[in-house]
Amino acid sequence: MIEVMKKDSTQDQLEGVKARIESHGLEVHLSEGVERTVVGVLGQIFIELKDELESLPGVLEVILISKPYKLSSREFKNEDTVIKGGDAHIGGDELVVMAGPCAVEDEDQVLSAAHAVKAAGAKILRGGAFKPRSSPYSFRGMGVEGLRLLAKAREETGLPIVTEVMSPEDVGMVDAYADILQIGTRNSQNFNLLDAVGKVRKPVLLKRGFSATYEEWLLAAEYVLAGGNDQVILCERGIRTFETGTRFTIDLSAIPMIKSLSHLPVIADPSHSTGRAHLVTPMTLAAVAAGAHGVIVDVRDGAQALTFDTFADMMTRAKAVAQSVGKVPAGTGR
Amino acid sequence: MIEVMKKDSTQDQLEGVKARIESHGLEVHLSEGVERTVVGVLGQIFIELKDELESLPGVLEVILISKPYKLSSREFKNEDTVIKGGDAHIGGDELVVMAGPCAVEDEDQVLSAAHAVKAAGAKILRGGAFKPRSSPYSFRGMGVEGLRLLAKAREETGLPIVTEVMSPEDVGMVDAYADILQIGTRNSQNFNLLDAVGKVRKPVLLKRGFSATYEEWLLAAEYVLAGGNDQVILCERGIRTFETGTRFTIDLSAIPMIKSLSHLPVIADPSHSTGRAHLVTPMTLAAVAAGAHGVIVDVRDGAQALTFDTFADMMTRAKAVAQSVGKVPAGTGR
Amino acid sequence: MIEVMKKDSTQDQLEGVKARIESHGLEVHLSEGVERTVVGVLGQIFIELKDELESLPGVLEVILISKPYKLSSREFKNEDTVIKGGDAHIGGDELVVMAGPCAVEDEDQVLSAAHAVKAAGAKILRGGAFKPRSSPYSFRGMGVEGLRLLAKAREETGLPIVTEVMSPEDVGMVDAYADILQIGTRNSQNFNLLDAVGKVRKPVLLKRGFSATYEEWLLAAEYVLAGGNDQVILCERGIRTFETGTRFTIDLSAIPMIKSLSHLPVIADPSHSTGRAHLVTPMTLAAVAAGAHGVIVDVRDGAQALTFDTFADMMTRAKAVAQSVGKVPAGTGR
Amino acid sequence: MIEVMKKDSTQDQLEGVKARIESHGLEVHLSEGVERTVVGVLGQIFIELKDELESLPGVLEVILISKPYKLSSREFKNEDTVIKGGDAHIGGDELVVMAGPCAVEDEDQVLSAAHAVKAAGAKILRGGAFKPRSSPYSFRGMGVEGLRLLAKAREETGLPIVTEVMSPEDVGMVDAYADILQIGTRNSQNFNLLDAVGKVRKPVLLKRGFSATYEEWLLAAEYVLAGGNDQVILCERGIRTFETGTRFTIDLSAIPMIKSLSHLPVIADPSHSTGRAHLVTPMTLAAVAAGAHGVIVDVRDGAQALTFDTFADMMTRAKAVAQSVGKVPAGTGR
Repeated sequence: MIEVMKKDSTQDQLEGVKARIESHGLEVHLSEGVERTVVGVLGQIFIELKDELESLPGVLEVILISKPYKLSSREFKNEDTVIKGGDAHIGGDELVVMAGPCAVEDEDQVLSAAHAVKAAGAKILRGGAFKPRSSPYSFRGMGVEGLRLLAKAREETGLPIVTEVMSPEDVGMVDAYADILQIGTRNSQNFNLLDAVGKVRKPVLLKRGFSATYEEWLLAAEYVLAGGNDQVILCERGIRTFETGTRFTIDLSAIPMIKSLSHLPVIADPSHSTGRAHLVTPMTLAAVAAGAHGVIVDVRDGAQALTFDTFADMMTRAKAVAQSVGKVPAGTGR
Repeated sequence: MIEVMKKDSTQDQLEGVKARIESHGLEVHLSEGVERTVVGVLGQIFIELKDELESLPGVLEVILISKPYKLSSREFKNEDTVIKGGDAHIGGDELVVMAGPCAVEDEDQVLSAAHAVKAAGAKILRGGAFKPRSSPYSFRGMGVEGLRLLAKAREETGLPIVTEVMSPEDVGMVDAYADILQIGTRNSQNFNLLDAVGKVRKPVLLKRGFSATYEEWLLAAEYVLAGGNDQVILCERGIRTFETGTRFTIDLSAIPMIKSLSHLPVIADPSHSTGRAHLVTPMTLAAVAAGAHGVIVDVRDGAQALTFDTFADMMTRAKAVAQSVGKVPAGTGR
Repeated sequence: MIEVMKKDSTQDQLEGVKARIESHGLEVHLSEGVERTVVGVLGQIFIELKDELESLPGVLEVILISKPYKLSSREFKNEDTVIKGGDAHIGGDELVVMAGPCAVEDEDQVLSAAHAVKAAGAKILRGGAFKPRSSPYSFRGMGVEGLRLLAKAREETGLPIVTEVMSPEDVGMVDAYADILQIGTRNSQNFNLLDAVGKVRKPVLLKRGFSATYEEWLLAAEYVLAGGNDQVILCERGIRTFETGTRFTIDLSAIPMIKSLSHLPVIADPSHSTGRAHLVTPMTLAAVAAGAHGVIVDVRDGAQALTFDTFADMMTRAKAVAQSVGKVPAGTGR
Repeated sequence: MIEVMKKDSTQDQLEGVKARIESHGLEVHLSEGVERTVVGVLGQIFIELKDELESLPGVLEVILISKPYKLSSREFKNEDTVIKGGDAHIGGDELVVMAGPCAVEDEDQVLSAAHAVKAAGAKILRGGAFKPRSSPYSFRGMGVEGLRLLAKAREETGLPIVTEVMSPEDVGMVDAYADILQIGTRNSQNFNLLDAVGKVRKPVLLKRGFSATYEEWLLAAEYVLAGGNDQVILCERGIRTFETGTRFTIDLSAIPMIKSLSHLPVIADPSHSTGRAHLVTPMTLAAVAAGAHGVIVDVRDGAQALTFDTFADMMTRAKAVAQSVGKVPAGTGR
């Protein structure tokens, strides 16, 4: 941590800063520049110290040098984390596609989607039983009955299931049915929920908060890892910007960026980020080319999302791009 | 709801759209412009219809005309909602100041802060027992012991307490101690938590999500109102923008804007929005001049936030501004 | 254009709105919904009418249905515009790479870069002689001497030149040297400059303003097209968001989005958008997979940007991705 | 400037960094922390060094400690700059209101507005003769004829004129008529234009770019100051955020923030920032309470902006707020 004194700060103020730092058992390392005096803080830094120092008289700013996340950082663990979902490996050299309907609505819908996405090469079935909705008047999902239908689709197709959990008290129930537990973008700083899935022993698909920085996202992962669950899959799903032509702005530079900061697998959601069916295929191809370990796609036959045929076509094209960047078929790599 | 056809859409596509609308028992109203055909949808609109229509062939875009929130809208209830907190009235012509330490740390800290803010004219004591923290390694609050200290401060000073609740399963416990339950910015779309405080019969202080639109914010309030709790106080606490010179960007136009859209009281948080002590007083004065029904301020004696003296000075100045815009002393109005 | 009346608006207010619309020679088309009265405006709409109507009493909001840009829209011209730069075709089925140093510094630097990028397969040489700099104390480019060095590099390698013009009075001079004139992100709403390059008869590379919406970006192109210059190449170069981990956030969904809205070619700038060398290759591959007609990349041997070797490696990988999405070698397509 | 080495960087990489710094005649100051080695750079820093160092192997990040602007900083000049406009003092303890029509349309409009705003207490007349428009098909102002009408209004009322200049070649012409030259938000990084008004000897009203950080805004001012013109008035006019309920988000924390960073006067534009007439008065009052040295308001009788009556009412209320925060009547202070 580095603390910068104001230009017109006094010697007394500098002494005050030094005393405060040393009161926490930390060491001070002084550096007097042409324009500023800079105070290096050495030792076991805690994040609250930033606010504490910034409020002292004479202090211009405090800059954190160490990253506040540890278990999720590549510096902590250099090898890529590879997570198994059925016979697919997420985080290695495979491209793993998760697909299915956004919300589970009835048996026929789930089963037909499961068969269609499997036939096209998807390795994991997605489907929502608990749906976060901005309006209290919207359909909020089938609940446990939706979980049962997903389980039935797994039985029929062998595809593992990823589905969202919205509240700490539902974690046990969702854990009983799901193969991968999803944390949605609106819950990415629901810390009690992150604590709760940290105690589960199944992979967690952690969507980026739509206004979360890379650091906040990795800190959310840190909650799960610190809870003892080391199977976290990160998912870029678009951030909120001034552009309203798409629902959110998919940040594909997050893919290589997160791969450089963290050992955790990272996938992309081209459906919810763009909110427009005609952008799903190009953004899937782009995510693959950018190095994503997988994608999660809304597929259903009917009005919304990709239809089965469009999805099958997208899969063919995604495989070609995947091959061009050196990926192997899902289920054959590590 | 209005649906706009693409320029090169066919008559068949138009018929498809009309059929879909009518299948939901809604009426179609056609309007053929020079460049576009526009389809008005009449009847009891549901929000999911937008996505549904937007995915049909030939459709350019769908525009919502009605607001998706009802109980929180001024069209639903024209008179201002005034909420009592102790002897103060939030939502009327008083300026109500809530003040205290961000996090409760020990008895002495809470009691001295409570006495100091009361002496300066604050009407409600704030203090956090459960603290949402972006890092799992930060101090996450004293929990129930913090609630007990707040209750003790209330006993000594007579100030009602506002404190945060973070999880549905804690609502009962916090309700047993608090006079006003606070929902933090990171939980503003934690829908299970909103449901839970909707069942409580005490005022809820609902912070704006730092990336929530006005509409999403009012929909969050709608969750609480729809649950049967009609005492919601809205709090502007800064939104996330590209500017990093302040922690968040306080959106003071939200004050008159929300007052025009909703009957609910609206206050401002100049501390967490700016993240800088020297901006708290000017932003408090600005919020008052903009018409805020109150402010909630971090005050503690020591390193961070406003000191007791600075707070007392701010109160004197805020009262002068309040008077200049026609407010009466807190506790004397309605 | 559609105008929505407030719920509590009066018949008189509605008459006022109708009168105002008709005073401009436009037709009114009324639609009375359950909650709102909606007024369709038919005829030759002008964009200022929105503000005019929104200020009338009783008006809730005004919604534009027609796009404000015409010449740049795909509805105006359905076939893709293909622009020649040397023997490369920008806008067709080729992947055209523009590469070179960000700022021209000396002869040796430009010539060695020109030879290196040509050897690796680049088709157009980029280099800045006039540099927009946020600080007045930074090096602002070599000016006309830089243009001469670029011309010399063209002579030696045969590569056409793309270089930035910053001011209307420089357009003639830059036009005398450059093959493609570049408008930088900070000048994307410098309307006098857009007017000036509209009179040139050479291709214009128009960078997206870093806070421009798709609509504003296409309106900037419209300025050039309306001036009589129909050779505009659009370039996504990152938008400003809350994320500071990258310099800007590259918006790759802009690639397919702009291709659906406009017939103009669209390329990406993976260097300036990310500001980080290790992200240039993955974002180049992603842009290609997303359907970009080309990329523009900073390449120089030395400290910054991609080195010659890294660039050559990137080119090999970009060609593989290009092939996987059906592109042909640059110079062989249309 | 501070450079942070990666955790796994080698001694050789550190030597490389040191050599590079010393090659520029700068001094190195080493600090080895528990987790990172930090290199302080001492001497006359130049801003490009950041990019240069960040591209060296082993470098994690480079942090600027000194502010890149000098002449506009409060550290350079501690006393407030006060700028005279007619008999008003902008930057001292007066509240100076600039008002008038957004665009000059005809003589009657300008003269009646000038008389009305003067009667209500405005001290400076605003009006646009050159209008930046996002669409090339919109009315782009009356040009020099508009300047003549403004001059006539000045003659009749004695009010000095502030009006926008859009292009370096127009600076002479606008300078011949205007008392204060305005640089619009879209030209806030039009560096050639900033250079040009730096050579003028009249006050420049510099609007914040709608996506400019505080630092970029002050660097834009620095261009003007570095050109030799020390009369710059800064104007907060809203920034672009995700919120679309207002046209832009007015950032009122910019008022006290800029006052702490710079000695230059700072005013607010409540009209263009909000884009909604009913927000102009509350945002004016808020800006005054926040400490703004003035406001610039759109006023015209008719459809848009504030009407004369609303403006007069706003002035009465603004004066009360101004008095409550210790301002004196415009024209009587310093």
